[in-house]
Amino acid sequence: MKNETMYFENNKLKLIDQRKLPLQIEYFSCKNYHDAEFAISEMVVRGAPAIGAAAAYGFYLAALEFAGLPEEELEKELKKAADKLIAARPTAVNLSWAVEQLLDLALANLNKSEEELLAILKDKADQIADSDRKINKKMAENGNKLIKENAVILTHCNAGSLATVDYGTALGVIREAHFTKKNIKVFADETRPRLQGARLTAFELMEEGIDVTLIADSTAATLIRDGKIDYIITGADRIAANGDTANKIGTFMLSELAKNFAVPFYVAAPLSTIDRKLASGSLIEIEERDSEEITQIEGVQIAPENVKVYNPAFDITPAENIDAIITEKGIVKNPDKKSIAELFQV
Amino acid sequence: MKNETMYFENNKLKLIDQRKLPLQIEYFSCKNYHDAEFAISEMVVRGAPAIGAAAAYGFYLAALEFAGLPEEELEKELKKAADKLIAARPTAVNLSWAVEQLLDLALANLNKSEEELLAILKDKADQIADSDRKINKKMAENGNKLIKENAVILTHCNAGSLATVDYGTALGVIREAHFTKKNIKVFADETRPRLQGARLTAFELMEEGIDVTLIADSTAATLIRDGKIDYIITGADRIAANGDTANKIGTFMLSELAKNFAVPFYVAAPLSTIDRKLASGSLIEIEERDSEEITQIEGVQIAPENVKVYNPAFDITPAENIDAIITEKGIVKNPDKKSIAELFQV
Repeated sequence: MKNETMYFENNKLKLIDQRKLPLQIEYFSCKNYHDAEFAISEMVVRGAPAIGAAAAYGFYLAALEFAGLPEEELEKELKKAADKLIAARPTAVNLSWAVEQLLDLALANLNKSEEELLAILKDKADQIADSDRKINKKMAENGNKLIKENAVILTHCNAGSLATVDYGTALGVIREAHFTKKNIKVFADETRPRLQGARLTAFELMEEGIDVTLIADSTAATLIRDGKIDYIITGADRIAANGDTANKIGTFMLSELAKNFAVPFYVAAPLSTIDRKLASGSLIEIEERDSEEITQIEGVQIAPENVKVYNPAFDITPAENIDAIITEKGIVKNPDKKSIAELFQV
Repeated sequence: MKNETMYFENNKLKLIDQRKLPLQIEYFSCKNYHDAEFAISEMVVRGAPAIGAAAAYGFYLAALEFAGLPEEELEKELKKAADKLIAARPTAVNLSWAVEQLLDLALANLNKSEEELLAILKDKADQIADSDRKINKKMAENGNKLIKENAVILTHCNAGSLATVDYGTALGVIREAHFTKKNIKVFADETRPRLQGARLTAFELMEEGIDVTLIADSTAATLIRDGKIDYIITGADRIAANGDTANKIGTFMLSELAKNFAVPFYVAAPLSTIDRKLASGSLIEIEERDSEEITQIEGVQIAPENVKVYNPAFDITPAENIDAIITEKGIVKNPDKKSIAELFQV
């Protein structure tokens, strides 16, 4: 990716401002953890792996700010910062997963010198970000084994480098296929209501030099029926123990069409997206978002004032509609409770 | 409908400007056939029956302009006007159906006086418009027989009074169910790219006092799977002799979901929408519209500049996905070549 999702430099976390893409390429600078909290809650940065890494650096910014304080005060401030960062967005498990790792490490090392404590925390934040890069790259290599030459791939929402530290999940597989010169083409659903496909996926693939065509979400069905699509690849927000997958609204629709017309349907996600505590998709809570995502675009009203709206952000694709889940540990074909459990035993 | 789709007054065709709904209620005035051609191609007026009636009045405007000319020149100008009006949009058959009626009548009466010719053509245009009102009312009564009490109905795009001269096709059935106090509820797909569901259907149903909830197109699949939808009713732009139906992009997607989850899928359309010259849907020309419908909303760029776009305005729903076609002549269940032919023999 030409434009990095995030980097840490001169004691500042720099985030590409995803609210302004694709028209402006601007970096949002976080000088303290409040800035990082704002960036996550306002979706300057989005995508579960990306907000996990951003929050880790956000916690490190808090440590930088308070590391000179007496132990007791330092502990209080760091706990407060952790709470604020975790609360910035409610759904993604990566956020608490990352922040809690740094908080635990800080609490275990409060008696260390300022320099030592900061070095330990910076290392951990870097490690979370680096590990995300490596996981995505490995996932991409695994997924690429499923992709033939000259393939046409449909994707939904943005599961790209912008949703991660780098490379991406679904778009990581697509990138890898491109880098290995398979001459692929991509159709990107615009992905209403927030248009991540139009704003982010189209941008990211064009930057990478990958052939991408933008379509309305409704257009996918005809392309699938007419044999124009060889694979559908999406990311995931949460995967239950049986393989049922929560992802951006519209994913389930694609999976039904894929089933009807025998187009392989793949989900690319790291093991950290699999929530083994949930037996099935029906237990995954679906976030319902603000009606203005439907009634306004760029602040312009496009529907009658006060119209009732139903706006779930995600839907559940049943495991039986998924031909394979692509992870950093390998590919799970026809995912079910058993095959997913096995993934964690390797 | 409170606000008429169109009326003809003082030698001008007045069209409610559907590009500006629901925020502004403004009438676009056509002084000549070029204005009518513009209004149709730019979708000031849209919906198959409505553009048929608008084109009929558009042709009459041409006659008003040229009626004083010598017969030969008049014939040339009227043929040119007819060609232009028919070419304004390619998919809906009602356009040529209406214009050709007026052209044939004009050519058969070129030797009449200017006043006589104009009177004949004005009568015909009025008759097409009036007949559309009556046809819709009859279609609505027929369709309402299929609707149970407390039904929840999903509709796509706008097949309402705004798509016709009055009452509507799919929304006509919904109106009739409402008027007969069946306590119905409606889910309206926003219908990207042009958002006719958000802009027009939500507006029209709220004006009528019908319970309507707006959703992103991708959300329909989950509602259908979860048993929240009792019927899907759409209009049609062109129906082939075997029942294959061209309608707004996204209709085919809904029909596949309806089939998978056994939800009745109905198409409401007048006989004038059935193109008996076309054996099947694969012969229907699908209009591909400007990429800016996808890349811009209200003039605001929402995708990268120069991104490739595929933007078909319609898709084809195969007859086997349609449980019934509702017409003014009655209901055709499980439509096919034979049952559709019989409709014309009544």
